[in-house]
Amino acid sequence: MTFEKVTIIGLGLIGGSLARALRDSNTAGEVYGVDVDQSSIDYALSEGIIDAGSTDIIKGVQNADIIVIATYVGTIAKTAESFIASAREGSIITDVGSVKGDVVREIEEILPPGVHFIGGHPIAGNENSGVRAAVRDLYKGKRCILTPTQKTNPDAISKVTAIWESVGCDVYTLDPDTHDRILGFVSHLPHIVAYSLINSVISSDNADELFNFAGGGLKDYTRIAASSPEMWTEIFRANKTQVLQAIKHFKSSLESIEEAIENEDKDKLISELQKAAGSRRSMD
Amino acid sequence: MTFEKVTIIGLGLIGGSLARALRDSNTAGEVYGVDVDQSSIDYALSEGIIDAGSTDIIKGVQNADIIVIATYVGTIAKTAESFIASAREGSIITDVGSVKGDVVREIEEILPPGVHFIGGHPIAGNENSGVRAAVRDLYKGKRCILTPTQKTNPDAISKVTAIWESVGCDVYTLDPDTHDRILGFVSHLPHIVAYSLINSVISSDNADELFNFAGGGLKDYTRIAASSPEMWTEIFRANKTQVLQAIKHFKSSLESIEEAIENEDKDKLISELQKAAGSRRSMD
Repeated sequence: MTFEKVTIIGLGLIGGSLARALRDSNTAGEVYGVDVDQSSIDYALSEGIIDAGSTDIIKGVQNADIIVIATYVGTIAKTAESFIASAREGSIITDVGSVKGDVVREIEEILPPGVHFIGGHPIAGNENSGVRAAVRDLYKGKRCILTPTQKTNPDAISKVTAIWESVGCDVYTLDPDTHDRILGFVSHLPHIVAYSLINSVISSDNADELFNFAGGGLKDYTRIAASSPEMWTEIFRANKTQVLQAIKHFKSSLESIEEAIENEDKDKLISELQKAAGSRRSMD
Repeated sequence: MTFEKVTIIGLGLIGGSLARALRDSNTAGEVYGVDVDQSSIDYALSEGIIDAGSTDIIKGVQNADIIVIATYVGTIAKTAESFIASAREGSIITDVGSVKGDVVREIEEILPPGVHFIGGHPIAGNENSGVRAAVRDLYKGKRCILTPTQKTNPDAISKVTAIWESVGCDVYTLDPDTHDRILGFVSHLPHIVAYSLINSVISSDNADELFNFAGGGLKDYTRIAASSPEMWTEIFRANKTQVLQAIKHFKSSLESIEEAIENEDKDKLISELQKAAGSRRSMD
């Protein structure tokens, strides 16, 4: 085993699946779970997802080598602040938030000497949530992005890389702001668009009749709009600048197509669609 | 068998798959294929997709009980015009176009006495095209919408229903304009949005880097943007009014979310997302 104690704060889909996968891979002597909800801890214990657990965050982080904050993005920095004085010297804190810039800046500011931090974001998940949705293979073959800065301890990079590789991730590094710009386009924007598509159908006349024929494309295309509204509200707020920028680009692309249809400009329309189809095909 | 001769004009994914499924189900004594491309006919003959075929449309429609026009939507009415004087009395013409209003009106105007027409639209397909993509089970469990009008012969409704049921479709009827409004929302709009999403990524800085992380949602979400630009150009043009209306609704929904992010209005943002997530979940 590589670590004596790994503590995961927040036993949801992401934290619970990580705990389960770490136990399977024998990466840690003890996988300790912290959650505000005692019944999530009880479930995780009974299913063998964690070795031990508590609602007491201070007890949870004591003597941990690695502390993974797996709460919603809006509470990560506050969570770190709540326990950081109790982290032992040499311990490494990381997180799983979908937005990195502000979180990394805020936690780096409050780090005591000898305690290390590196931001992380496993690009994995599904439309389920909660510890009951935790699955052991959520991370197999997925990417995990780590976001070191000039202040990051090299040992923290290699140890957190080892954690994610042990559960099957390919680990990449990006600086925090580049991460946020990329994810704003490839993940946050598609979610906003999916939510908007569903809302545009709801707001139309005879919405019921439309939903009845959703198999025509709408249904498959909007699966991600079933994702947790609470979680995505926090992500969009945390990545406000990049998300608004991505929406702006998207609206401009949409309006190019809209204009071509409006003006019956066949050449322009086909060239817009060909541009997209060519790029999309190159992604397979 | 139900019909002596069924002629399919246009051996692409849709026409080719219908031919193959009709032969399998023994619905017709002869499945006859017409295409402008001799090599598509040769392929269809060699693979047993059709019983006989020709590039000569007049020869193809002679003595046919049912004539299915399976060309792109922009050429359906012209195709009908080119052979309609050679259709035998009592024959029934139908089509597979994704847009119905204008096509139905145009063909009804030119129908000779004793020749019948009913519009059709099987909601099936994938991102492939051409006769080599034809598969026997493309229509199994899918919906086919027929669009009769007050002028439609009842016999035409029941015979074309039989054709589609014999290949596994559930058959529904809608009036042509209602069909176009519904499909504008549930199919045409999602395609426009997918094409626009890809184009917005292409137009951003460091597009290559973004595509590298497309697994974060963009990739799965935009599969339909790989669909044929030529075919979709015709569909968007043919359904211009309804498509523009759907885009307008969509932009308004998008802007509600955009504004909530811009104004950091958490309550409004979460309520917009909840509205969408609730409806999307009810679709499963």
